[in-house]
Amino acid sequence: MSDETLIDRRGRLLGKGAPLFYRDPVHIVRGDGVWLYDADGKRYVDMYNNVPCVGHANPRVVEAITKQTATLNVHSRYLHEGILDYAERLTGHHDSSLSSVVFTCSGTEASEVALLMARAATSGRGIICSDSGYHGNSTEVRKLSRARVGDNTTPEFRAIPYPQTYRPLTNGSNGSELTNIYLAEVQKAIDGFAANDIPLAGMFVCSILANEGLPDIPPDFMKGAATLVRNAGGLFIADEVQAGFCRTGRWWGYETSDFVPDIVTMGKPMGNGMPLAGVAASTELVETFRKNTGYFNTFASSPLQAAVGSAVLDVIEEEDLCANVAEVGDYLRTALRALQRNHEPMGDVRGHGLAIGIDWVLEREGKTPDREGAAEVANRLKDKGFLISNMGPLGNLLKIRPPLVFGREHADLFLNAFEETLREL
Amino acid sequence: MSDETLIDRRGRLLGKGAPLFYRDPVHIVRGDGVWLYDADGKRYVDMYNNVPCVGHANPRVVEAITKQTATLNVHSRYLHEGILDYAERLTGHHDSSLSSVVFTCSGTEASEVALLMARAATSGRGIICSDSGYHGNSTEVRKLSRARVGDNTTPEFRAIPYPQTYRPLTNGSNGSELTNIYLAEVQKAIDGFAANDIPLAGMFVCSILANEGLPDIPPDFMKGAATLVRNAGGLFIADEVQAGFCRTGRWWGYETSDFVPDIVTMGKPMGNGMPLAGVAASTELVETFRKNTGYFNTFASSPLQAAVGSAVLDVIEEEDLCANVAEVGDYLRTALRALQRNHEPMGDVRGHGLAIGIDWVLEREGKTPDREGAAEVANRLKDKGFLISNMGPLGNLLKIRPPLVFGREHADLFLNAFEETLREL
Repeated sequence: MSDETLIDRRGRLLGKGAPLFYRDPVHIVRGDGVWLYDADGKRYVDMYNNVPCVGHANPRVVEAITKQTATLNVHSRYLHEGILDYAERLTGHHDSSLSSVVFTCSGTEASEVALLMARAATSGRGIICSDSGYHGNSTEVRKLSRARVGDNTTPEFRAIPYPQTYRPLTNGSNGSELTNIYLAEVQKAIDGFAANDIPLAGMFVCSILANEGLPDIPPDFMKGAATLVRNAGGLFIADEVQAGFCRTGRWWGYETSDFVPDIVTMGKPMGNGMPLAGVAASTELVETFRKNTGYFNTFASSPLQAAVGSAVLDVIEEEDLCANVAEVGDYLRTALRALQRNHEPMGDVRGHGLAIGIDWVLEREGKTPDREGAAEVANRLKDKGFLISNMGPLGNLLKIRPPLVFGREHADLFLNAFEETLREL
Repeated sequence: MSDETLIDRRGRLLGKGAPLFYRDPVHIVRGDGVWLYDADGKRYVDMYNNVPCVGHANPRVVEAITKQTATLNVHSRYLHEGILDYAERLTGHHDSSLSSVVFTCSGTEASEVALLMARAATSGRGIICSDSGYHGNSTEVRKLSRARVGDNTTPEFRAIPYPQTYRPLTNGSNGSELTNIYLAEVQKAIDGFAANDIPLAGMFVCSILANEGLPDIPPDFMKGAATLVRNAGGLFIADEVQAGFCRTGRWWGYETSDFVPDIVTMGKPMGNGMPLAGVAASTELVETFRKNTGYFNTFASSPLQAAVGSAVLDVIEEEDLCANVAEVGDYLRTALRALQRNHEPMGDVRGHGLAIGIDWVLEREGKTPDREGAAEVANRLKDKGFLISNMGPLGNLLKIRPPLVFGREHADLFLNAFEETLREL
């Protein structure tokens, strides 16, 4: 069946508008490590997918899924040691204050749990978020994405301009001066809720502001924001769905900003593609949440989730993927910054570990975002066999986010193709 | 490790309050078909779990999961035929008007999609639900469970008393007279929304009112309610998370009430325990939803969901499990009704296929619900090796809901143990 027919059939069965990547979408049939293969046998280096963190079709994950599915997979209202062993290992990677966990099936469900938990524990309702974040697709969680600075259509959600150094809120400011400018926005949101008699429940942001475009965050902003929020009676919720599990070269994104949140959501890489997500917090917060909600999730906290999640931890720990990410990420970012010197459109190269963003601009001085140029680069790289995307709040960020098993040899292949693309433009 | 220690450890890691079944919870380590085995090697006939519909550790499902995980599991923004083949087969089992599908990871996510879809298509907000339903655990979907008759704390959700013949709203009424009494409640909810200037989005109920206790629904109530709702500009959403996939001896619960909904949610048995759920509707409704929301779900519409979902369909179709459920369900219900004649506490025996409820009462005349008696029966049966539960709005319903592969031989084993329990009480 040709790809054209496949697109029509997809429109009929899933509805036109189900999102697809690239001008000419790719038809992937097989994966192996960092490689993806299309129906014609063409292979691609996967530099987009953070979910299959230990690699596509990882044999340890396959073995764990097979063994557990053939043994037992049932809901969590019976006793089972697997899920407790997994919870113990997972929380062991967190700050000791984050000692209990609520498992879910998706990042959206984790965001829902975090919102319910913060609101139950504080008896507050107001949530501060960023103006360019994404935390999921449910009715309530969508409000976190829809909130805009100074817009009152979502009264219980107030957005702040996301902190960044590249296109700062006040030009000419930097360092702690810039930190204070953004912290004032947090305080403004807190005051706004107070003025409307909406008690604060907390602040909910991604630890590395991934959807905001991986900006360099002004120093100590996260720590300062957490203090302001706690002083106002709220809790700080860190979304680690993209930032967690060694993506940054550290276990958690919050370590890169040197703060400890009260509630952490986790997802995407957690089960290497098997639906698995969750929320870590203090035992006290988790119990308050359970008491208030009677929360039960049919498919979550299952022996299957436990087995797959444990296999992912096995591989990350045994292959020391955090160290690999730190090393290869630095290597790739350094090489990209060298290219940046001679290539005007590469406005900014930033990120942590293997979450790298290239801010694509029309000209360096004005930092004018070039969305179409970025899309052109992503499409050309796809044709050359490298899958990346153009995203971010302005659509002009080339996002490089390969599986954690991405090595220096794959980085070299990419750098060659990227240089070639730069020459072609 | 003793079960006592396991419970303490569970409290520490998952938080006290994470729900557990039975006075002395069971510690299940293995499953096979309709059988579950605990850590001491004791075996139980599973008569509770509707999720592992084709049986625990079904080899076809194990094979499908293994093969697909070893080949490819990636998000849905690339083309993939597996998910289209599955969507085609799945919608093929529905009424022809339900021709497109949105896949999700959980029933909660399916309920969210259904609410967003109905609201997008109608530009309405008001949702009519029952006073004893359950459709999921997110902030918005929880409102469907929290809504109470005549309570205005959830202004966009209005509950009606759930239709039933055993404890009817007006004593002495039956047949179409009773249908009209309950339809008047639907009209009252429609009028209430109109009076508050909240345009109607639709009505959202389980096709067989499973959480309401599987009541006998007065004749043509569902059809009549759908007409009232549509005439008022709303859409009828049927929750088939529990009712679907041959649970009733028909493919869908809506067939037992002889109506066709506009939107259908599906979940639990769909992936035999692998997180898989979804929403079926007309292509037009699905496209309106996609256009309005840009919906994307990281783990859903994946090659893995497709492979597992297809394996479940293979087994249901090839083993003709719908016919098995109809036959064994009738056999079991008939035998239970025979026992009912001599046993006062068995107030009512009802349900469809292998969704059977026994309404446990203190005395037959007053139909006084006996929650503690029902819990006693469930605990005694557990000790004898049969897992059922006591649930329902009054907590007094013995719920029998085994995997679809439950046979006459398992029914006979259960009937012996149940008779023995009746003699002991």
